[in-house]
Amino acid sequence: MRGLIIGRFQPFHKGHAEMVQSARKYEIILVIGSAHQSYTFENPFTAGERYEMILGAMGEMGIERFHIIPVADINRYCIYAKHVAEVVPSFDVVLSNNPVIREIFEKEGYKVEDVPFYRREEYQGRIIRERIAKGEKWEHLVPKSVAEYIKKIDGERRIKNLFPKRAADF
Amino acid sequence: MRGLIIGRFQPFHKGHAEMVQSARKYEIILVIGSAHQSYTFENPFTAGERYEMILGAMGEMGIERFHIIPVADINRYCIYAKHVAEVVPSFDVVLSNNPVIREIFEKEGYKVEDVPFYRREEYQGRIIRERIAKGEKWEHLVPKSVAEYIKKIDGERRIKNLFPKRAADF
Amino acid sequence: MRGLIIGRFQPFHKGHAEMVQSARKYEIILVIGSAHQSYTFENPFTAGERYEMILGAMGEMGIERFHIIPVADINRYCIYAKHVAEVVPSFDVVLSNNPVIREIFEKEGYKVEDVPFYRREEYQGRIIRERIAKGEKWEHLVPKSVAEYIKKIDGERRIKNLFPKRAADF
Amino acid sequence: MRGLIIGRFQPFHKGHAEMVQSARKYEIILVIGSAHQSYTFENPFTAGERYEMILGAMGEMGIERFHIIPVADINRYCIYAKHVAEVVPSFDVVLSNNPVIREIFEKEGYKVEDVPFYRREEYQGRIIRERIAKGEKWEHLVPKSVAEYIKKIDGERRIKNLFPKRAADF
Amino acid sequence: MRGLIIGRFQPFHKGHAEMVQSARKYEIILVIGSAHQSYTFENPFTAGERYEMILGAMGEMGIERFHIIPVADINRYCIYAKHVAEVVPSFDVVLSNNPVIREIFEKEGYKVEDVPFYRREEYQGRIIRERIAKGEKWEHLVPKSVAEYIKKIDGERRIKNLFPKRAADF
Amino acid sequence: MRGLIIGRFQPFHKGHAEMVQSARKYEIILVIGSAHQSYTFENPFTAGERYEMILGAMGEMGIERFHIIPVADINRYCIYAKHVAEVVPSFDVVLSNNPVIREIFEKEGYKVEDVPFYRREEYQGRIIRERIAKGEKWEHLVPKSVAEYIKKIDGERRIKNLFPKRAADF
Repeated sequence: MRGLIIGRFQPFHKGHAEMVQSARKYEIILVIGSAHQSYTFENPFTAGERYEMILGAMGEMGIERFHIIPVADINRYCIYAKHVAEVVPSFDVVLSNNPVIREIFEKEGYKVEDVPFYRREEYQGRIIRERIAKGEKWEHLVPKSVAEYIKKIDGERRIKNLFPKRAADF
Repeated sequence: MRGLIIGRFQPFHKGHAEMVQSARKYEIILVIGSAHQSYTFENPFTAGERYEMILGAMGEMGIERFHIIPVADINRYCIYAKHVAEVVPSFDVVLSNNPVIREIFEKEGYKVEDVPFYRREEYQGRIIRERIAKGEKWEHLVPKSVAEYIKKIDGERRIKNLFPKRAADF
Repeated sequence: MRGLIIGRFQPFHKGHAEMVQSARKYEIILVIGSAHQSYTFENPFTAGERYEMILGAMGEMGIERFHIIPVADINRYCIYAKHVAEVVPSFDVVLSNNPVIREIFEKEGYKVEDVPFYRREEYQGRIIRERIAKGEKWEHLVPKSVAEYIKKIDGERRIKNLFPKRAADF
Repeated sequence: MRGLIIGRFQPFHKGHAEMVQSARKYEIILVIGSAHQSYTFENPFTAGERYEMILGAMGEMGIERFHIIPVADINRYCIYAKHVAEVVPSFDVVLSNNPVIREIFEKEGYKVEDVPFYRREEYQGRIIRERIAKGEKWEHLVPKSVAEYIKKIDGERRIKNLFPKRAADF
Repeated sequence: MRGLIIGRFQPFHKGHAEMVQSARKYEIILVIGSAHQSYTFENPFTAGERYEMILGAMGEMGIERFHIIPVADINRYCIYAKHVAEVVPSFDVVLSNNPVIREIFEKEGYKVEDVPFYRREEYQGRIIRERIAKGEKWEHLVPKSVAEYIKKIDGERRIKNLFPKRAADF
Repeated sequence: MRGLIIGRFQPFHKGHAEMVQSARKYEIILVIGSAHQSYTFENPFTAGERYEMILGAMGEMGIERFHIIPVADINRYCIYAKHVAEVVPSFDVVLSNNPVIREIFEKEGYKVEDVPFYRREEYQGRIIRERIAKGEKWEHLVPKSVAEYIKKIDGERRIKNLFPKRAADF
C-alpha cells in the first residue's frame, strides 16, 4: 500500500519526520511541492536540495523503500490532484490534515487520511526559517542530517539574505 | 449592440444582477475573468460553476439572449484587452466602472461606459465570501438560484475550508 | 441532458452542422478547441470569429439553447478532460468519434457516445482551407451564414496569405 | 558517485536496461524527460506509468539504490541543464551519447560520459511503439516486467488508438 | 568591459542615474526586469515606455554606448541568472547591491560588484509612485527627460488610477 | 522616424544587412524573434549570441543609432503585434515582406512597408545552416564579423551536432 504526502519541506523538519514515522505501514511517496520555487524567503531551497534533505532524514530513520518526486506548481487547484497523480506511481491513500488538499483529492475519488500533529507550534517551516534569519537556535527542530546539510550548503546565510528583502524586490 | 461585462463572479451577486438589468438594451457578453482560478478563498468556484450561477440568474431575470465566456488570466494588463477580444464575439461597448479596465480598453480603441453602482458596501464578492466563511446570513445578497446552487454543490463548506488557511499553504 | 462536442471549427462546416443536428436531443455545449491559435494555416480564425460562425450556423438550424465555450490548449492530454470540465457547465455525455478523446474522457469517468460521419472525405477543415487557398469552390461545404461571415471578414485572403508560407517562418 | 541518465522511456526498453547495467558503478539518477507529455503516439505513457516501468525493471536487474525523477520540458535548451539540475540531487557525471545533451551540459561545467549502444536499430522507443501499433511482436524488446505492466494498463490499445490519428487532430 | 545592471525602472529615477554615472567605465547593459508587467501600481509602465525613459536619461547624461534589454520574469530564481544571460550580449560584471542578485549570479560564476547608494530614502520607485498618486511633488526625483516623458504619456493619471484599486480587482 | 524589422537572425546574413541598408532613413529597431529558442537546428544561436552578431554587422556598416530587442515567442499570432509593441520603443512603420506580419500589424493599425529582396535563393538562414552542417562554404553569405563570431563561439560544430538529430530526440 502506498501513501502520498505532499509538502514543501522548506526545510524538512521533525514534524515531517514524525508524519513519516506514523505512516511506516505505507510505502511512502513524498511529493516536493512548489518544486520550481527557490531563493525566496518562503521557499529558500531548490527541489534538488530538499531531495537531499529527505534522503538524509530517511536514512536517519532507517526507512529504505520510499519515493521522492518534485512537482511544480500548477496554480489551478481544481486540477492539482490530477497534475500530481500524472507524475507519481499509483497510490492508495493521501495523508494530509489540510482541508483543501482533502477536498481536491476526494473530489477526484482519492482516499484521504488524517495524520497526527506534532508540536505544530514549533515544527513549522516558517518558524524555522525565521529562527535561522534572526540567528536563533533552530537545529533542534530538524533531523540531525538536515541541519548538517543546510550548514554544508551555507543555507543559513542564504535565508538571512532573503529575510529582510524580498527576492523579487530588485 | 453588444455590451461586454467582465467580472470574476465569486459568486454572481445582486450587484452583478443590477448591472445586467441596467444594460438590458445590449446583448450582453459576460466574461468570467480568472477562469482557471478556483479552490482559493479569493476564487472559490470554478469557471464552470460560475457559468451555472449566471445561467440560473439570467433565467430568473428572464434574459434569453446573452453570452458567457470564461477567460483565463494573462497577467499582462497591457495586452489584456486584446486577450479578451480575441476569444469573444465582436462587441460595441465595455460596461465597467473600473478605471483600469477603462484605461486598458480605451487604449485599444474600445468604447467604455460607466454602470451604476448598487449598494456597493454590501454587494461585493469578498463580503459575501466572508459572511459564508463566518456562518453569517448571506443568501439575501445573491439571486435566489445562485444561493440554491451554492448550497447544492456544498459551496459553503468549501469556502469555510478555504477561509482560515490559504490553499497554497500546504 | 447536456452533450459536449469538441472541435476546432476551422471553419465550422456542414460536417459539424450534421453532428449538431444528430444530437438535437441534447442541450449542446460546443467547445472551441485551440482557442488561442489563429493566423496560422491550420488555425486561421480566432476563437471569437469561430464563435460568430457557430452563432450564425445555429441560427440557420433554428437551434436556440446551446453553449459555446472557447478553451485554450493545455498540451497535456492526460489532464485535458479535467481542463475542459473545469470551465464548462456540467454535462452528461461527450459526443465524439475520436478514439483519443474517448480514451481521455472515459478515463475520467465521463460517458462518450459515437456520432455519425457525414461525407468525411469532403467535410473536413483542412480540405476546405486548401480549397480556399487554391481559389477553388468551397462555399457549398459550409453553412450559408458561415460562408458569408468568412467573406465579410476577408477570410479568404487571410487563408491565401497563410498557405504558402507558415506564419512562424519570419 | 552519481550518474545522471535522461530519457523519455516511451517505453523503458532493453537498450535503457543495458545502459543502466553498464553504469552500475554509479548511483543512477533516471530523469524521465517530457514528463507532462502523454497520450500522444510519440509519448503514450504518463510520467507516473513510466516511473512504474522503471521500478519494475530495476527490480528485475536487482538494482536497489537509484533515483527516478520526472522533469517537464522547458523548450529552452540553453537553460535545460540548469532546469534539470535544479530538481535532482547533486550528480558527478551525465551519461549520454546525444551530442546536444553533451553540449548543453558541458557548457554548464558538467562532465559527460559516453555510454555503449546496444542493438540501436531494434532498441528504440519509436520502433517498439510502431510494432505495438501494427500488432507485431514487441515484448522481447523490453524487460519482462515492462511488457507485463504495459499489458496490465491496456497500453497496447492506447498506442493503437494513437497511431493512425494524432491526438491533436480533433 | 561590460557591466550589467538589472532594474525595474518604474520609473527610471535619479538613483538609477547615479548608479549609471558611477559605472561609466563600463559599457553598460541595462536589463529592464519584469518586462511584461505594466498597468499595476507596482509596475505602471510598459517595458517599451521604460525603454524610452532610459533613452532620454542616457541622452541627458551624454552616454552614447549602452544596451537596453527588456527581460520577462521567470519566477524561478535558481535559473534567473541563466535566463538573463541567454538574451544579453556577454558581460564581465554584474553591478548590484541586492544580496539575492549577488547570490544567484555568483552561484553561476559571474562577478558581482557593489554600487554606491544615493539618497536611498528618496530615490525609490515606490516612493515616487506614491508621490505621484497623492499629487505630491515628484519631478525632482527623476531626470528631467523622464519627468517630461511621463507627463507626455499621461502617466500621472495612470498611476492615480492604479493607486486605490489594484488592477486585478475587477 | 523609427522602422521595426522582425527576424530570427539564425544567423544574421547579407539579406538582413541589405534590408537594413535600404532602410537607413529610419532609426531601426531590430526585433530578435524566437528569443528563447536556441540549440536546435532551426534556432541554433541564443538571443545573446544573435545580439552580438547584429552589433558586429552594424559596426561593419557604420550604423550607429539602432535598437536590438530580443522578444520571446507568444504563439498567439492574433496578439503578437501587441506583444512586440509592448516591449519596444514607439515606432512609425514595420518593414516586412511577410504577408502574415503585414496582416497582424495592419490589423492593429500599424503601417507596414515592403522591403526589397536580395538574392533570396541564397540569403536564407536555413540554407546557410545547411551549408554549415554539410561542411560547405557559407562565410560569403554573412557579414565578415558574423562569420568570425560564429567561428569564435565554435558555432559550426554546434550546428553540425544539431543537424542529423533533433535536440528534442533524447
